[in-house]
Amino acid sequence: MGIVLGPNRYGKAETRLVRVVRDGETHHLKDLNVSVALSGEMTEVHLSGDNAAVLPTDTQKNTVFALARKHGIGSAEAFALLLARHFVTARPTVHRAVVTVEEYAWDRVPVTGHSFVRRGQEVRTARVLHEAGRTHVVSGLRDLTVLNSTASEFRGFVRDEYTTLAETGDRVLATDVRAEWRHRDADGDWESSYAETRRILLETFAGTYSRSLQQTLYTMGRRVLEERPELCEVRLAMPNKHHFAVDLEPFGLDNPGEIFFAADRPYGLIEGAVLRDDAPAADEEVWS
Amino acid sequence: MGIVLGPNRYGKAETRLVRVVRDGETHHLKDLNVSVALSGEMTEVHLSGDNAAVLPTDTQKNTVFALARKHGIGSAEAFALLLARHFVTARPTVHRAVVTVEEYAWDRVPVTGHSFVRRGQEVRTARVLHEAGRTHVVSGLRDLTVLNSTASEFRGFVRDEYTTLAETGDRVLATDVRAEWRHRDADGDWESSYAETRRILLETFAGTYSRSLQQTLYTMGRRVLEERPELCEVRLAMPNKHHFAVDLEPFGLDNPGEIFFAADRPYGLIEGAVLRDDAPAADEEVWS
Amino acid sequence: MGIVLGPNRYGKAETRLVRVVRDGETHHLKDLNVSVALSGEMTEVHLSGDNAAVLPTDTQKNTVFALARKHGIGSAEAFALLLARHFVTARPTVHRAVVTVEEYAWDRVPVTGHSFVRRGQEVRTARVLHEAGRTHVVSGLRDLTVLNSTASEFRGFVRDEYTTLAETGDRVLATDVRAEWRHRDADGDWESSYAETRRILLETFAGTYSRSLQQTLYTMGRRVLEERPELCEVRLAMPNKHHFAVDLEPFGLDNPGEIFFAADRPYGLIEGAVLRDDAPAADEEVWS
Amino acid sequence: MGIVLGPNRYGKAETRLVRVVRDGETHHLKDLNVSVALSGEMTEVHLSGDNAAVLPTDTQKNTVFALARKHGIGSAEAFALLLARHFVTARPTVHRAVVTVEEYAWDRVPVTGHSFVRRGQEVRTARVLHEAGRTHVVSGLRDLTVLNSTASEFRGFVRDEYTTLAETGDRVLATDVRAEWRHRDADGDWESSYAETRRILLETFAGTYSRSLQQTLYTMGRRVLEERPELCEVRLAMPNKHHFAVDLEPFGLDNPGEIFFAADRPYGLIEGAVLRDDAPAADEEVWS
Repeated sequence: MGIVLGPNRYGKAETRLVRVVRDGETHHLKDLNVSVALSGEMTEVHLSGDNAAVLPTDTQKNTVFALARKHGIGSAEAFALLLARHFVTARPTVHRAVVTVEEYAWDRVPVTGHSFVRRGQEVRTARVLHEAGRTHVVSGLRDLTVLNSTASEFRGFVRDEYTTLAETGDRVLATDVRAEWRHRDADGDWESSYAETRRILLETFAGTYSRSLQQTLYTMGRRVLEERPELCEVRLAMPNKHHFAVDLEPFGLDNPGEIFFAADRPYGLIEGAVLRDDAPAADEEVWS
Repeated sequence: MGIVLGPNRYGKAETRLVRVVRDGETHHLKDLNVSVALSGEMTEVHLSGDNAAVLPTDTQKNTVFALARKHGIGSAEAFALLLARHFVTARPTVHRAVVTVEEYAWDRVPVTGHSFVRRGQEVRTARVLHEAGRTHVVSGLRDLTVLNSTASEFRGFVRDEYTTLAETGDRVLATDVRAEWRHRDADGDWESSYAETRRILLETFAGTYSRSLQQTLYTMGRRVLEERPELCEVRLAMPNKHHFAVDLEPFGLDNPGEIFFAADRPYGLIEGAVLRDDAPAADEEVWS
Repeated sequence: MGIVLGPNRYGKAETRLVRVVRDGETHHLKDLNVSVALSGEMTEVHLSGDNAAVLPTDTQKNTVFALARKHGIGSAEAFALLLARHFVTARPTVHRAVVTVEEYAWDRVPVTGHSFVRRGQEVRTARVLHEAGRTHVVSGLRDLTVLNSTASEFRGFVRDEYTTLAETGDRVLATDVRAEWRHRDADGDWESSYAETRRILLETFAGTYSRSLQQTLYTMGRRVLEERPELCEVRLAMPNKHHFAVDLEPFGLDNPGEIFFAADRPYGLIEGAVLRDDAPAADEEVWS
Repeated sequence: MGIVLGPNRYGKAETRLVRVVRDGETHHLKDLNVSVALSGEMTEVHLSGDNAAVLPTDTQKNTVFALARKHGIGSAEAFALLLARHFVTARPTVHRAVVTVEEYAWDRVPVTGHSFVRRGQEVRTARVLHEAGRTHVVSGLRDLTVLNSTASEFRGFVRDEYTTLAETGDRVLATDVRAEWRHRDADGDWESSYAETRRILLETFAGTYSRSLQQTLYTMGRRVLEERPELCEVRLAMPNKHHFAVDLEPFGLDNPGEIFFAADRPYGLIEGAVLRDDAPAADEEVWS
């Protein structure tokens, strides 16, 4: 019996890069958080500490900054592709690069061309896995907090000896959407693809009469695939953020679906994938 | 020499209240985090544990929910006033109530009348201090993250033996604005006052050529007071979130104010008050 | 081309359970955070919202509390096993249960038998995956923050056009250890196995002269497997928390490895698995 | 009516300083988070942006590192005193310096003299306010999480129309202690004073039969002053972290004070000061 090295990776995580492009008086802003994870011929560094195949994470950080200057940042996806290909191409000992980008959105303050206010809604995400012979691009978002104040029920569920929950025909449905969607190909119009997918997710959450959060989740994923031919798989994590109607009877008051307590924990965990039946396989490492 | 009880208070913190008002198909949403702090004849409970003067914090929580149902929530300020007056009026042993409300904003998803997406920018705050003979109302916001990509310099500062910082004529200026503003009176049009004050803060940050963050802070406070006669004092905390231009020379690249590293810590602490010279005095407890 | 449901799961996350066992004047405390994730015949609830196969997450929460009362909590692992087996056995539509437990440790305040102070070091974790025919148990810890103030170097690494890092023969090595170790079998002495594995991790980190953090990581995993026959695989994530020696020369001072700046971001990402070559395969879902 | 500048301050916050002292094979570690806030002749920088009186926050950061090298770090309090006096003495435009230090404790891993594991319990704090003619030193701690599993009741409280809480003769009492204590003088044996005060707080929390959390709080403050003559005032904030006994009757089970749900929010806010009647006055800025 022997002991062996299993899957491993290393890199520089969370390099906070801000790029300002000056178009006369009008500036453009990109605000990114870039993480790199490399794998390849890394057995020796683990076994003996020999760093001959190790590109320092400090160098990876420098590369993020330098390539942003050299090539600009077309989009989160394009920049992740650029970086992932660079590391695999430039370093023969690196067989796989996974580059993850979080993008923080800013709105203009229309008083000047150089003033911005951070838009606090969802964080946009992009992840590229690149290795010899294949490239996967997964776009996404997290922390898109949405709520329907009606058009949600929960009935007909299993009851056992530990069930006390009453059925309800009208409840608040709230969640923080974490969505990732995988592209068929490694090129595309990343900006419009993102904008449209986000719109479909939001509108489908809003427009779906919900008999369960799973149904809402699946419908959101299905609609995205129906409308966006460039995508082949969607993964969604949508925690059920419970809003409990407060019992006001002890105070001589009714509560016709008006007063709710928003609970922190526990919450419902709801996760699922929706995919085309001809979607090419992808490594788990492309998902967060 | 004796040992005595000093200032003290107690209450229920962070009651998460969501209210839905149904106007036919169109719903309206209020999403609040309410904290109550009471003080008064509380010596006995500290010295002997006698609770005869103690209104349980659980009751305070119930009161938040019940009064929301009974009276609705006109605005964060109005609801804080209602609660603060209730506790002082209803309980003779309570001499002072401080009620703090955080309000989270939601935008409509225009597919239905009942669908909302959380607007992630700043959190709106309101604080009311009420006691016999006086009532203070302080409105505010926190986590309004803003950035000017130019029109900021930092020069002419003191140099001592520990100074290595170079002067700069063009830097990124970024901060998370924490602002609170005190009203002269305990009535007003809280919604429009908030909207206008927020607008002035944002536009003044954007429109001010900055020689120091202190100057920007003071200008923001001054403008608010100049334009909003209902206010008598503004307090601002604006951490200087450093964006360092990355040195790309080792890679044969220049960096004409384009590539920045956004640092987490340390950061600059910048805090200041701006007030009218005839502003009535207020207790420190009205400020967060 | 069709659209299909892919992997999915649901459950109740983060039920905060505290159990007090009273042995006369001496009390014993268990403080857990329990998360349940179930999968099985869940297609219908996604496609049509039919909940006939859905055990509500509220019931899962109740089950956590009730089974703790009925059967006690022998250890995090034993309780996770009990719950996972319960859900799969009790509900034919549930094919797989993954139960994750975080345990917070408390020390006694030796003044009474009922007084405790939370030990703030690492959080202990346990995860059980149970389905027909197999059961996996993974124990672990997170947030074990360790530091060697010497006996760490970093030399002989790849240099490319973006490399500016100097080699160093003496640096601070600091990390937050996230470790998980998989057991061969679903029974064992969970408490002593945990205590011993934690000790080996800590002592190996301390006692290893480090030529790279990867080498330290691998050595820690290898030692655990060498000394603990009940384990078959170890996974480690050990972010490199950089401590930069401050340049004090501008102030006429040297810095002989004494004054460091502890940076937040970016940090080095270092992750790896160490396993026996005869370790049985396990689903990715057993790892966090 | 005019608009004027009110109280203001600026400085460098959260400089993360780690110091290693090498005593042969045995190393000693200090891990601090240092924040500086200065005030004085700062009107001009606010009104016009003239920085002639402004010592850059970057210089303050450099000073933290340089003085640590020059003078060492005897204790959190001693280092805060050194820094506060430096800024007021060295810069005539600085009239007041407030230096806050957080200290993170580490335990030795006894395998080597240079290996440490972070002790995760409370964070130690120290704050010094220094200006011409007076110096205040406030020591403290935060995040000391403690729990009594019995010996706590809550009865005899006020009941009004919104009260539903039942009286209880046996409950779990849990809190995160935030304590600060003010020294009479600006010298002392800071290490032993801290250790003893911490011990008294912990033992008094444990040993006090509690009829209310306020009573426990007051007793803790009183004992500290009774036993530590070098102190003149204690301030405590002790949120009541509710542990609710779970109702297991629907499942045919009793719950004899054994199974609890640990709630996050809302929580009880309990704050109070205990002081000697001859304690000299101090500015609010000395308290966090």
